[in-house]
Amino acid sequence: MIKKEQIYEGKGKKLFATDDEWTLIAEFKDDLTAFNAQKKAQEKGKGALNAAISAKLFALIKQNGVETHLIKRLDETNHLIKKTRIIPIEVVARNIATGSLSKRLGIKEGTELDFTLVEFYYKNDDLGDPIINDEHVVLMKLASEDELKTLKTLARKINDILRPFFRSVNLNLVDFKVEFGRDQNGQILLADEISPDSCRFWDLTSGEKLDKDRFRQDLGGVKLAYEEVLKRIEGALK
Amino acid sequence: MIKKEQIYEGKGKKLFATDDEWTLIAEFKDDLTAFNAQKKAQEKGKGALNAAISAKLFALIKQNGVETHLIKRLDETNHLIKKTRIIPIEVVARNIATGSLSKRLGIKEGTELDFTLVEFYYKNDDLGDPIINDEHVVLMKLASEDELKTLKTLARKINDILRPFFRSVNLNLVDFKVEFGRDQNGQILLADEISPDSCRFWDLTSGEKLDKDRFRQDLGGVKLAYEEVLKRIEGALK
Repeated sequence: MIKKEQIYEGKGKKLFATDDEWTLIAEFKDDLTAFNAQKKAQEKGKGALNAAISAKLFALIKQNGVETHLIKRLDETNHLIKKTRIIPIEVVARNIATGSLSKRLGIKEGTELDFTLVEFYYKNDDLGDPIINDEHVVLMKLASEDELKTLKTLARKINDILRPFFRSVNLNLVDFKVEFGRDQNGQILLADEISPDSCRFWDLTSGEKLDKDRFRQDLGGVKLAYEEVLKRIEGALK
Repeated sequence: MIKKEQIYEGKGKKLFATDDEWTLIAEFKDDLTAFNAQKKAQEKGKGALNAAISAKLFALIKQNGVETHLIKRLDETNHLIKKTRIIPIEVVARNIATGSLSKRLGIKEGTELDFTLVEFYYKNDDLGDPIINDEHVVLMKLASEDELKTLKTLARKINDILRPFFRSVNLNLVDFKVEFGRDQNGQILLADEISPDSCRFWDLTSGEKLDKDRFRQDLGGVKLAYEEVLKRIEGALK
């Protein structure tokens, strides 16, 4: 597959055309951003770590019945993927209250939630990715009512796959953000990535944060944390 | 009914006990507040205007099949009401995009929405009444799933009663906020008030704003606008 012209650049990845219309290459970048890109940095090797982690997790998720856009990892930082039209909704699943949930609603940091909470955010940098309800999704034609239900079901299913998996490597999957796209037949596929950039992982024993909060909160050791997550995943998925 | 000790003071009303445990008196205040009470003023006579408007609208809504907490208007500023446990959700129904909806989601001011949008806000001054989705309502135990559906149904029913009524007096009901409470049997009643403090009214001919936006946006003529709304309602509901 030939890597042709760049067709998109996001905060964490670049997308390139290939010689097939419905196949793209996603290149993972070393850029770290937080707070709607008001805070920025570079971390050499971060792109390759996320490409490795995300490829492993997408394979695990697919084995458990959720279709994804990933065809295969090509090299350190490049994924061959199915082209989709991305649904402009950040789907967030939360097991434990922290971050914006705690701040916005006054739920104490670290509270284990009674059920896995699913939230939708309108993916729009200019507006700062505002939280939306189901009716906003339909009103703004971001997704149909059926698709909306599918997004919630898939987010919970992914959580049901990942949470026990991470527990088995002594990590608490606190919350995560996923994105979905429609393929050429309109089928909804898991897209984007799942990595310490888009999840919160707390070590089950020490409580140590092994995710992008190390960058958000200036805790240091960002790359070490991402390496640790990859090492634990690889240890379990030999 | 004897007006006994004050049991609560909100931004727009005071509540007093009576000699009956399940009956209260709501006294409408002249205070105007906006932006989570960061902007404050007094407008002499405003409480009486809202008490008059709200009493007329609650009667109209009840005639059309939605139960309310209102027993009767006692005098200029006092309503005799059934005591309820207020559900801490501000239920907002919107026909036209404006205000926070336009700002948050980038929907052009004045856009007629494809359907009446219902939004929930967690009634909590310290948190600035954040917007919430259905799952937050259940997670935070603000209302049960059945009650949540009832709140949406009632908000739309109230809109279906009020919007044509206001159209008949040449006012466009742009959006409104309502609150509900549970009576001693757990039945959900419309509570609080419906007035130019909690609705947006635009004159259908001139587009002139006849509601609290005159205060929010420093347009002047707040009391004149509220008087005009009352005059039109009284003209139609003789």
